[in-house]
Amino acid sequence: MVPYFRAIVPAGGAGTRLWPLSRRGAPKFLLDPFGSGRTLIQATWDRLVPLAGPDGIAVVTGAAHADAVRGQLPSTAEVFTEPAPRDSMPAIGLAAAVMTYRHPSAIVGSFAADHVIGDNVAFSDAIRGAIEAAREGLVATIGVRPTGPSTAFGYIQAADPLAGLAARRVAEFKEKPDAATAQGYIAAGDYRWNAGMFVARGQTLMDRLTEFHAGLADGLWTIARAWDTADRDRVLGEVWPTLPRIAIDHAIAEPLAPLGGMAVVDGAFAWDDVGDWRSVGTLAAPAADGARHVTIPPRSPISPAAAAVLIDSPDALIASHSERVVAVVGVSGAVIVDTPDALLITTRESAQLVKEAVNELTRRGREDVL
Amino acid sequence: MVPYFRAIVPAGGAGTRLWPLSRRGAPKFLLDPFGSGRTLIQATWDRLVPLAGPDGIAVVTGAAHADAVRGQLPSTAEVFTEPAPRDSMPAIGLAAAVMTYRHPSAIVGSFAADHVIGDNVAFSDAIRGAIEAAREGLVATIGVRPTGPSTAFGYIQAADPLAGLAARRVAEFKEKPDAATAQGYIAAGDYRWNAGMFVARGQTLMDRLTEFHAGLADGLWTIARAWDTADRDRVLGEVWPTLPRIAIDHAIAEPLAPLGGMAVVDGAFAWDDVGDWRSVGTLAAPAADGARHVTIPPRSPISPAAAAVLIDSPDALIASHSERVVAVVGVSGAVIVDTPDALLITTRESAQLVKEAVNELTRRGREDVL
Repeated sequence: MVPYFRAIVPAGGAGTRLWPLSRRGAPKFLLDPFGSGRTLIQATWDRLVPLAGPDGIAVVTGAAHADAVRGQLPSTAEVFTEPAPRDSMPAIGLAAAVMTYRHPSAIVGSFAADHVIGDNVAFSDAIRGAIEAAREGLVATIGVRPTGPSTAFGYIQAADPLAGLAARRVAEFKEKPDAATAQGYIAAGDYRWNAGMFVARGQTLMDRLTEFHAGLADGLWTIARAWDTADRDRVLGEVWPTLPRIAIDHAIAEPLAPLGGMAVVDGAFAWDDVGDWRSVGTLAAPAADGARHVTIPPRSPISPAAAAVLIDSPDALIASHSERVVAVVGVSGAVIVDTPDALLITTRESAQLVKEAVNELTRRGREDVL
Repeated sequence: MVPYFRAIVPAGGAGTRLWPLSRRGAPKFLLDPFGSGRTLIQATWDRLVPLAGPDGIAVVTGAAHADAVRGQLPSTAEVFTEPAPRDSMPAIGLAAAVMTYRHPSAIVGSFAADHVIGDNVAFSDAIRGAIEAAREGLVATIGVRPTGPSTAFGYIQAADPLAGLAARRVAEFKEKPDAATAQGYIAAGDYRWNAGMFVARGQTLMDRLTEFHAGLADGLWTIARAWDTADRDRVLGEVWPTLPRIAIDHAIAEPLAPLGGMAVVDGAFAWDDVGDWRSVGTLAAPAADGARHVTIPPRSPISPAAAAVLIDSPDALIASHSERVVAVVGVSGAVIVDTPDALLITTRESAQLVKEAVNELTRRGREDVL
């Protein structure tokens, strides 16, 4: 455990990109797509306990998911319920303001509830480096060393090393690039994947927010002062609806970088945001039948009877709730997601378009399968 | 009805190419893939009754399917049960020999149980033309006018017109061609699709068989003489296992063509052998959602709730037993066959490879899904 360190886990998301496995009522963070025995939010908890301790982790989630989150985590987890979604800055800022009001020396870190990380020790090392930078008044982020020119992630351009720290100053944040730009980033060498992790003294984070979005910071402080009193619900109900929707990247990280206030620490671990079915296809382990499988509850793990038949169909990903035979013939990179009420057929290449299918079902009013 | 005309309907097939809709226990001819309200063998019956009458149609099928065939057809249908499969010449020859032994003037025609024909009047016209040729001692076949350079069918090269008949002599039968050869056939103009229909006087057919395969003809006559006696089962049990496996094309049509004994009548109707999922995808009518649907029993016809969601996925074919949502994203010509115990994903382009999936399941001993 690191003294004064508190972890914030924003757990939101509409559940569209891994549809029909993820749903509005069952977003990705509540699922265990790789059969590890722990859901993604449980794995996030496991990763943070050595740093923040079981009493130092807060989850910020919507009212619809608060009970499910409490059901999956130990009772020491603090669950902040957002009255309505306001994107990541209000969500993270709410917990950060409350923690800082309680403990003015708190150092806070925010970590998505639904990412996969391959090496918890290397993760801890990176966060400890970020905490050191945070102690110096910087807002620190983790830049994951790219394993290839992904166009699915944003990038962080690193500048000069910061004296005495295992960190460099952030030159600039870059949106998801096109393929040629991504190739250029990899060739240049100074670019890292933006894993969406931020570590700062709570007071620093709130001060920076005051500089860039004073009204938002004021609102969060107002809520924080009332949080541990009988006025919590009243104040939350009054103030929350007035807060702007904004992501922490846009609210703090991007404007702060050119001012020299952002640090980036290398993350020397495998990381993925499990952002689409292509990503799941890469992360799931290949089985003896040549396919990669994702087990959809209530099904138990893959039995030999369920082995897929793949004819001229490399790189198949099969997510199924049933034991029935799945045969794939002549489809490269096939993605098959077989749930009781919805069947998705796509390919790794087209995985980013799945959200369009969800949009179409929304237009058709098919709330029953969303 | 045409005097002396008898129809023979060989109903065999392993049910592999339309797997998992067709199975060993439920071959294609017992199914109604296009939701017409009649199975393929029932539609075949409907087409033949105006020519042969309800008392003039015989089905030759395996022991496994005899009861199902009887269940689908009127009681006037005569069902010949093969003790074991011996390909089409023994099957057709059995019924032809029995019919000819009973009625020496019989004219027999054989018609597959699982083909689709678009115009029953044009079909009747063609068969009447073939019967005229049969009366002249020829073995007549139907050559369907090609609608394109298909590589899925065999071809018949037509030669000179036959005086006084709406038929031409057959120059040669051609196996399924490659694409370039098929293009050449279409350009040449004298080629027709071989629809596997044969019409001849029963005596002619048996005489020709005697010329080319005397042992087989002798065996069939031996069975035919015993058929309507108490000795049927004993003789069938003794003789049938000695008969060679051979198709009628190889046994009679191909050797007879160069001798000038084969006639071809133009078939001016839409025809398809429903040989694979590509064929089904062409034959099924497009629905309002842009996909083509095949309804798998016990499901009732497509409801609006089951409409597919197609994103960047033209020419989808969805055969499903359930009402669940099917979304296809980024797969052109997708074929999805969704049955309770097996799910097939392929494309029209790869439809011919489905038999390899069936072969693999056979190797794995998955009789439960075959």
